[in-house]
Amino acid sequence: MTKSLFLLPGDGIGPEAMAEVRKIIAYMNEKQDGGFITGEGLVGGSAYDAHGQAISESDMSKAMAADAVLFGAVGGPKWDAVPYEVRPEAGLLRLRKDLELFANLRPAICYPALADASSLKPELVEGLDILIVRELTGGVYFGEPKEIIDLGNGQKRGVDTQVYDTYEIERIASVAFELARTRKNRVCSMEKRNVMKSGVLWNQVVTETHKRSFSDVQLEHMLADAGGMQLVRAPKQFDVIVTDNLFGDMLSDVAAMLTGSLGMLPSASLGAPDGKTGKRKALYEPVHGSAPDIAGKGVANPIAMIASFAMCLRYSFNMVAEADRLEKAIANVLDKGIRTGDIMADGCRQVGTVEMGDAILEEFASL
Amino acid sequence: MTKSLFLLPGDGIGPEAMAEVRKIIAYMNEKQDGGFITGEGLVGGSAYDAHGQAISESDMSKAMAADAVLFGAVGGPKWDAVPYEVRPEAGLLRLRKDLELFANLRPAICYPALADASSLKPELVEGLDILIVRELTGGVYFGEPKEIIDLGNGQKRGVDTQVYDTYEIERIASVAFELARTRKNRVCSMEKRNVMKSGVLWNQVVTETHKRSFSDVQLEHMLADAGGMQLVRAPKQFDVIVTDNLFGDMLSDVAAMLTGSLGMLPSASLGAPDGKTGKRKALYEPVHGSAPDIAGKGVANPIAMIASFAMCLRYSFNMVAEADRLEKAIANVLDKGIRTGDIMADGCRQVGTVEMGDAILEEFASL
Ligand SMILES: CC(C)[C@H](C(=O)O)[C@@H](O)C(=O)O
Ligand SMILES: CC(C)[C@H](C(=O)O)[C@@H](O)C(=O)O
Repeated sequence: MTKSLFLLPGDGIGPEAMAEVRKIIAYMNEKQDGGFITGEGLVGGSAYDAHGQAISESDMSKAMAADAVLFGAVGGPKWDAVPYEVRPEAGLLRLRKDLELFANLRPAICYPALADASSLKPELVEGLDILIVRELTGGVYFGEPKEIIDLGNGQKRGVDTQVYDTYEIERIASVAFELARTRKNRVCSMEKRNVMKSGVLWNQVVTETHKRSFSDVQLEHMLADAGGMQLVRAPKQFDVIVTDNLFGDMLSDVAAMLTGSLGMLPSASLGAPDGKTGKRKALYEPVHGSAPDIAGKGVANPIAMIASFAMCLRYSFNMVAEADRLEKAIANVLDKGIRTGDIMADGCRQVGTVEMGDAILEEFASL
Repeated sequence: MTKSLFLLPGDGIGPEAMAEVRKIIAYMNEKQDGGFITGEGLVGGSAYDAHGQAISESDMSKAMAADAVLFGAVGGPKWDAVPYEVRPEAGLLRLRKDLELFANLRPAICYPALADASSLKPELVEGLDILIVRELTGGVYFGEPKEIIDLGNGQKRGVDTQVYDTYEIERIASVAFELARTRKNRVCSMEKRNVMKSGVLWNQVVTETHKRSFSDVQLEHMLADAGGMQLVRAPKQFDVIVTDNLFGDMLSDVAAMLTGSLGMLPSASLGAPDGKTGKRKALYEPVHGSAPDIAGKGVANPIAMIASFAMCLRYSFNMVAEADRLEKAIANVLDKGIRTGDIMADGCRQVGTVEMGDAILEEFASL
């Protein structure tokens, strides 16, 4: 069985990080009959530079057809002035929407070797292992109207619409509950039901879904602002957090930063299982952005991208042993004190992107 | 000249905290010709219990007529099931909206005596002094449509609308720039212009307002998710942060928690200066909530409420010396190691709400 991967390295440090994943894929194909077939396309600013779109129709078709998409990062000051419709992020948002990748899984884990790198006190983050399940195809990201209206008299009006339907909340809640069962069996749902009607509905539907099908899982509700606080105060209280697109964007970034391992955190964006084949469309990307300031210098940390590929092995190809092995390789390399600049610490050896990729591959091969 | 204060203690620990402010007002009237006249009303769950509304028309009129409103806190599990329109928060939201309190000032300062109480490493928060300027009468809190629609087939749709007009952004940006001039002269504006049209407009209008009238102030733009990260990573990089209603809600809670002083942080919500008198409507409230779990036990920390009164002295009555003195009294009491349970530390003396209020009043009287 072949496994098709479509690679979209994107902008900034995306291509450098992706190159390290490509080495791992090549190794798996050669030494382990990995059976991966890869294609590659353009997304974000680099796509805009090439053909004036944040992603081309042809690359969209390839992404649609692939078993999984590996995505680097998009954006940078170079494209700050391009029209809204073709800004770099539009490519990513279109992929999420058209592939119906409604479930964004963002683990916030603290690698033991990096507990000191967190801005939080080590005892608060050591062993931290949260999974943020963010709704990714709805909410204020896609709701209509979304426009700027000219009101005359020099006045404009910016409008965005937050919309959630019952089925959208149900399916993301179900994903969260299912994943909780494989973990500590606890879900915390976050919204602003005291201010938003979509939050009221969110709260109701999560509650009903829980009652109907997942009453064995422990469920808690928290206002999203209080949730942000609690993440900073005592992050280890959480197991799975389920929340909407915008709150998920904010909260997962805060959670990522807590771990001190921002350059290390992967994410998976999954669609619904296909009725016939059971396959789900999927895209894997680092939580970090395109980091234009360090792009092209060979110093970017490729770990988040590699760890995203590990998630791909796990969720798209059910290659659980290989995923475990790749994650273990990352942890071991960190334990050996090999570090990129962003996670450098006393007594460690600082390396560049390529050496970090080499070290992980070597470790992976030896496990 | 009399100064009229309208007190709305609200729910949970609100009344206990307010009682400590009342002692300070009484002292100032008696010993210093403070000239305060106080009235008192009901808001939130306690108002609902009394007359089925989150605030009565008569209390709204009194709030409108007062020079300043002192607000405690609202909400609690007791009222979780009341209809959306009369939930406790509706009282607060109506006050903000009808009094046109568009500018919410939320200082996030780290009291030196409490640097260890932060979950962040002390060196990251020692001396922290951020001012979050949050837009308070617009955005997704008030935009229409805001509704739950029954779509049939067991499907509902929750809708909220984020709306910002040019003038709303201009006036809040101006407040931020003006306040920055009295501080470190730096403003960071946060939005999600890469996803939201209101964010695009926000960014443009802040940029234009800066160019037109405040080019002496240093201005930076940051995406709100990155802003949440940076608050956790290196909060001292910020001076004034200006942002919309919902992002401000989230970010100010994160910032408050960083300081380790959540029970200590005040806020001011200000309207525009009146064309004739120059007076601005104002409401002062702690950043913390109603803390129903500890309500009625006499253990709540009254400092945020007292510090909110200090902001009232400063912004509504231009009593700068008295405001400074009250803030100094709070800092001195903390330096003496007097602590409520929430900020208790080794070697300190734990006291209840009333003793803390007494200690601050005594210190205030002695300065
Ligand atoms: C790049 C941007 C559109 C995106 C988002 O807001 O979702 C990013 O911040 C993320 O979290 O994946
Ligand atoms: C009580 C609630 C409506 C309020 C808000 O969301 O604005 C609170 O969280 C705040 O920050 O003042």
